[in-house]
Amino acid sequence: MQFFDKKEETRTPISDIGEFGLIEHLTKDIKTNNINTIKGIGDDAAVIDIDEKNFQVISKDLLVEGVHFDLAYTPLKHLGYKSVVVSVSDIISMYAKAQHIIVGIAISNRFTVEALDELYSGIKLACEKYNLDLIGGDTTSSSSGLMISVTAIGKVEKNKIVYRSGAKKNDLVVASGDLGAAFLGLQVLKREKNIFLQNPKVQPDLSGHDYILQRQLKPEAAERYIKILEELKIQPNSMIDVSDGLSSELIHIAKSSKVGINVYEDKIPIDHTVMNFSNDLNLNPIYCALNGGEDYEVLFTIKQDDYKKIEKDPDFTVIGYVTDESEGVNLITNDGSSHPLDAKGWDSIVKNQNT
Amino acid sequence: MQFFDKKEETRTPISDIGEFGLIEHLTKDIKTNNINTIKGIGDDAAVIDIDEKNFQVISKDLLVEGVHFDLAYTPLKHLGYKSVVVSVSDIISMYAKAQHIIVGIAISNRFTVEALDELYSGIKLACEKYNLDLIGGDTTSSSSGLMISVTAIGKVEKNKIVYRSGAKKNDLVVASGDLGAAFLGLQVLKREKNIFLQNPKVQPDLSGHDYILQRQLKPEAAERYIKILEELKIQPNSMIDVSDGLSSELIHIAKSSKVGINVYEDKIPIDHTVMNFSNDLNLNPIYCALNGGEDYEVLFTIKQDDYKKIEKDPDFTVIGYVTDESEGVNLITNDGSSHPLDAKGWDSIVKNQNT
Repeated sequence: MQFFDKKEETRTPISDIGEFGLIEHLTKDIKTNNINTIKGIGDDAAVIDIDEKNFQVISKDLLVEGVHFDLAYTPLKHLGYKSVVVSVSDIISMYAKAQHIIVGIAISNRFTVEALDELYSGIKLACEKYNLDLIGGDTTSSSSGLMISVTAIGKVEKNKIVYRSGAKKNDLVVASGDLGAAFLGLQVLKREKNIFLQNPKVQPDLSGHDYILQRQLKPEAAERYIKILEELKIQPNSMIDVSDGLSSELIHIAKSSKVGINVYEDKIPIDHTVMNFSNDLNLNPIYCALNGGEDYEVLFTIKQDDYKKIEKDPDFTVIGYVTDESEGVNLITNDGSSHPLDAKGWDSIVKNQNT
Repeated sequence: MQFFDKKEETRTPISDIGEFGLIEHLTKDIKTNNINTIKGIGDDAAVIDIDEKNFQVISKDLLVEGVHFDLAYTPLKHLGYKSVVVSVSDIISMYAKAQHIIVGIAISNRFTVEALDELYSGIKLACEKYNLDLIGGDTTSSSSGLMISVTAIGKVEKNKIVYRSGAKKNDLVVASGDLGAAFLGLQVLKREKNIFLQNPKVQPDLSGHDYILQRQLKPEAAERYIKILEELKIQPNSMIDVSDGLSSELIHIAKSSKVGINVYEDKIPIDHTVMNFSNDLNLNPIYCALNGGEDYEVLFTIKQDDYKKIEKDPDFTVIGYVTDESEGVNLITNDGSSHPLDAKGWDSIVKNQNT
């Protein structure tokens, strides 16, 4: 029953345009009017002019039970920690320092006070780790499941801020840390859940997977990498955090900066445990890196002159370079051939390679 | 299955301590460390020091389908509008001007692009009305239903900010506008929904209820009242917005300010349509005002010297005065007797009166 709403003339399923298409559709005609709005929708975080020297940077993330996490294998303390990290990661990828968070929680009545204590203990732990003040929130009921919304607020000197949109032709494309591990950790957890559901007496076998499980369950934001970049006196031209997968982040940078990007399959940083274990699961490790997401590394571009500063540092890997917009975003595979990347489409390349 | 979580030794249902008890429990040991954190948890909004002259004020609200709204009788455009108003109301009650919002939405796949267009058209309308920039957001899937999280950001001169905690003994307690109408609007909508469910051929009868329906479905934040107060050169000692019901807001002010409050039944401002229609529904209109909520008026206290400035203004009603903490929060009913108020307990007083 809807006795108010107009009859919808057309009914377009959201899947027709996808998540990014939907955001673009809903926000395409939004203008900003306040003079202190520096950057609205379209980057990892919004930017507000607060004083002569600094910008304020604000991000927001929602984590929804059944979509972003499964409480069957996600300890609540880890979930609390991760929910903060996810938002802080957006602040960091603007080259800013996170200072405050506001946490909203919607909970159904199946959660106990003790369960929420666990969740909050993780939130508080992340606040200690990243030196954040938890300054507010909203706690409400939900008709089903748990939903966490974290707003993170940070600060950055005006001349230091880095946007997605600053990549220049011939920039080098660099990733921190390694990629694909969080996705692989999720696969192990899902596998063990399925085994458990078939036979609840079988104890889950998670041994030997410490690294990938930690990357999935208790990720860290790339704060330490930003500190190293500052020590190396590198000011990136563009930056984004790797939350949805390398492929999607490359496309975001390319689209926002109006450039093309080539990355090399053999340069993508993969931890050796990921390399070994993905073979066991019959997954291509490059697929995990490109489409897995949740690594919370930073992906950024630097001018070629900075190459010498970064080349010997094991924290960073140059994975490609920025090209002309007309060339698009491509993966150069080990056989030298070039494959256009899209946020969903690499699946087919991997399948072709595996068969 | 939970193969990680510690076994909970005790299992305390959240209903044992209630929403406010839960928030207090979860946040009681939270300390703030950043020097620019002025006010953390415990008011309508958090307060950050941003420059020499101004504080920044940030609020966050979650609206959950099935808890805060029922799409059977809530037009999506109205819902979008209201979700912004709810957050802006928190900013206004700090005596601040809202400037920016960030909107997070979790949606299940039963929503179409056109439905979200409707929702966003309401959000955009509210942005125009309150001169807000929509500067960011997160759009994600949900396994069930719709969830909206709005973060609002505002600004206020440091010497103008008003907290819940500033009420002083002998202050006058004042409410803007009128109370109870939004709750009564909800009762009409629920009644018509039930009739419709029993017989879908019956058209809903909403005629004559424009005012209470508008107060429920498309409320406004109290911005215009704040402007009037400023014109009257009144600087309140304390303020809160009426989102949960007058009773609960009085208790918040009293608790934060360490004072008691007496309010008079015959002073509580009730619109004549509420007065008439609540009788039809066999509801006490004072009950609607005290426990209904969603009026988004402002409740505030002023020093007695300001009485002359406000007494003739029909926008405001003096409903009581601030007493010593030891006296508690009380409703003085028309027969002169005093009844302690709590956030839930007035039900019994009304029932006694009605029988």
